[in-house]
Amino acid sequence: MRTDPWLDDACPIARTMAVLGQRWAVLIVREAMLGRSRFSEFRERLGVASDVLSARLSELAAAGILEAVDYQRPGDRTRSRYVLTDAGRDLAPVLAAMGQWGHVHLARPHSNGSYFVDTGTGEAVGVGFRSPDGSSVQPAGVGMVERHHG
Amino acid sequence: MRTDPWLDDACPIARTMAVLGQRWAVLIVREAMLGRSRFSEFRERLGVASDVLSARLSELAAAGILEAVDYQRPGDRTRSRYVLTDAGRDLAPVLAAMGQWGHVHLARPHSNGSYFVDTGTGEAVGVGFRSPDGSSVQPAGVGMVERHHG
Repeated sequence: MRTDPWLDDACPIARTMAVLGQRWAVLIVREAMLGRSRFSEFRERLGVASDVLSARLSELAAAGILEAVDYQRPGDRTRSRYVLTDAGRDLAPVLAAMGQWGHVHLARPHSNGSYFVDTGTGEAVGVGFRSPDGSSVQPAGVGMVERHHG
Repeated sequence: MRTDPWLDDACPIARTMAVLGQRWAVLIVREAMLGRSRFSEFRERLGVASDVLSARLSELAAAGILEAVDYQRPGDRTRSRYVLTDAGRDLAPVLAAMGQWGHVHLARPHSNGSYFVDTGTGEAVGVGFRSPDGSSVQPAGVGMVERHHG
């Protein structure tokens, strides 16, 4: 696998995009979050070419987002399932934020996206800014600043 | 501009990635959030080739994320500045979630990324899940479910 220089960029957003910016990567993570784990499931759900899917699964495993777990059905050869690691599950707020933005700003009448719920209550949850004490901060009151090393 | 079929995908995450998945797009948005607006500023800050930058700025404008505003210095030709629209500013939680993930899961000793603050207090803010009443929901208690049309 060719190493993307962004993977070592000083900016953590760039490092994340080195992994998630590859075509199909985010949608593979979405399918994994919905419980899909087999190569054939990803291929059928996404309609992605096998060679592309294979490359993406390897990259996501190398990035620590997916873990390959061998499994074997009787009389069949050993195959790999791909399951989210803790780091992979931690991508939930990233996908949720993307989904929220697309839902609002690229609205489509046929939109049919997945969404996130509190598994305890079944209630839909969203992502938003909050201060260290856990209180919500309105987006209009948030700005980006540069970190300067002293 | 070639139209990406993902821009019309039923999944809002896919639609968002149709725009943000293009190389450099997220970092151009990052620079715009830090107040950069001129072509030369983006080019110098990012070290991106002019033709690529030009294509990305056009795509981000077509997607409603940036708006081109003409300006002219005395004796100079008219140029465009690129400023975030409301939809563009709404990408803040997406970039913040990416930055948080990269900071934790792709940690680097030379990491020097930008971060988000409450502009009222100057306090750093993060993104996280919350229920409709505004209370925080722990990531471990969140799951993705598919939306089914009735």
